[in-house]
Amino acid sequence: MNGDFSPEEKDGFYKAVFSRRDVRSHFTSEPIDEKALSRILNAAHHAPSVGFSQPWNFILIKDKESRRKVKNSFDKERMRSSSLIEDPKRSKYLSLRLEGILNSPLNVCVTYDPSKFGPFVIGRSSIPETGIYSVCCAIQNLWLAARAEDIGVGWVSILSNDDLKKILDIPEHVIPVAYLCLGHVTVFAEKPDLEKAGWLDRLALKDVVYYERWNNVSDPNWQQIREMIISNLDYA
Amino acid sequence: MNGDFSPEEKDGFYKAVFSRRDVRSHFTSEPIDEKALSRILNAAHHAPSVGFSQPWNFILIKDKESRRKVKNSFDKERMRSSSLIEDPKRSKYLSLRLEGILNSPLNVCVTYDPSKFGPFVIGRSSIPETGIYSVCCAIQNLWLAARAEDIGVGWVSILSNDDLKKILDIPEHVIPVAYLCLGHVTVFAEKPDLEKAGWLDRLALKDVVYYERWNNVSDPNWQQIREMIISNLDYA
Repeated sequence: MNGDFSPEEKDGFYKAVFSRRDVRSHFTSEPIDEKALSRILNAAHHAPSVGFSQPWNFILIKDKESRRKVKNSFDKERMRSSSLIEDPKRSKYLSLRLEGILNSPLNVCVTYDPSKFGPFVIGRSSIPETGIYSVCCAIQNLWLAARAEDIGVGWVSILSNDDLKKILDIPEHVIPVAYLCLGHVTVFAEKPDLEKAGWLDRLALKDVVYYERWNNVSDPNWQQIREMIISNLDYA
Repeated sequence: MNGDFSPEEKDGFYKAVFSRRDVRSHFTSEPIDEKALSRILNAAHHAPSVGFSQPWNFILIKDKESRRKVKNSFDKERMRSSSLIEDPKRSKYLSLRLEGILNSPLNVCVTYDPSKFGPFVIGRSSIPETGIYSVCCAIQNLWLAARAEDIGVGWVSILSNDDLKKILDIPEHVIPVAYLCLGHVTVFAEKPDLEKAGWLDRLALKDVVYYERWNNVSDPNWQQIREMIISNLDYA
């Protein structure tokens, strides 16, 4: 049962997982160290990918003009989204800080290029979406590595991909998957912003785990793990 | 520039990233410790999610009958895929070991439920796919945590989602995102199987990073980071 991770190494890993946050405010102007950034990108590049297709690209953006255009796209989409709900939810939504496009020192657009190593990619024929899933795994690696390097990351999803493609010269067949804001922060919040703001609660782990089939929550063969999950607190 | 991660904690984190493998063979029959499993699932549950929607579920599967059905779906899809390519690529493809469905002690199906906390989820109106992207982030957390717990994970994507939904009673509106095989292993390979088998090479980091816009690889404002990326070796 003893693996090759020391208790300290495990602690370090879980610390990144549990203290990672989606950061929108609290960015400082401190520049990001180049060595740290290259380590973060390298971690992203070592994500798993279907058929080893490595279908990701990372566009690093500092240019103010591009970022202003992205911010305009956000503003437009935010207003559009807010019209889908009614007060008091709408006012609450509009009061939330949801991006750090101009306040962070670096933006990164992560893209999916389905043509890379294609058209036949092992494991992508039955479920073509697995290509884009690989890019998401790279994004999560990037996010966690940034946390270990003391860099906050915020994912801005209130954007038009058509706008993004125009602003960043992204070709027709390539899909923007994430638009991220990176930078040092004054603080990593203890809880996710939306949890703290009372928008939604964190679900209990037991409520997202099923046994043998959908919706089966009490299987006699799984009693032990179920008890463990119910009593489970964060690793930290 | 000094963060709150000690060198040992950082080492532990990067060790998980760089030694994580997509495992298909080398599974042992050693059972997975319940405490380790609950920590792995908890790490997955602490992934980022759009609008804090936590749209994931984890179906834990040990039942032999279900797994045999999943294996049948794999066999069918593998033959179908192989017909898309010609020899010698086809023979090479058919010689590769691509799943551990019956050889691993535990299978986990990770699903996406778009109805959770819906229909309005903050940040999901402009790009609805961000819901499924959140589930992928959870999968990557699970994968890395498993590595830290000395557990191998293999993602089987040569499957029919229709078959999976029938076998696991998954409702119409829920999408299976990943079918994973988990277990202790005799060894974590030094390189990805498909790299070792000479199927594809790992791309250089410099070839997946662009500056300011698509395809721009040599921007004078980015010289320093570019040199760092070119000279960069794995953190380890």
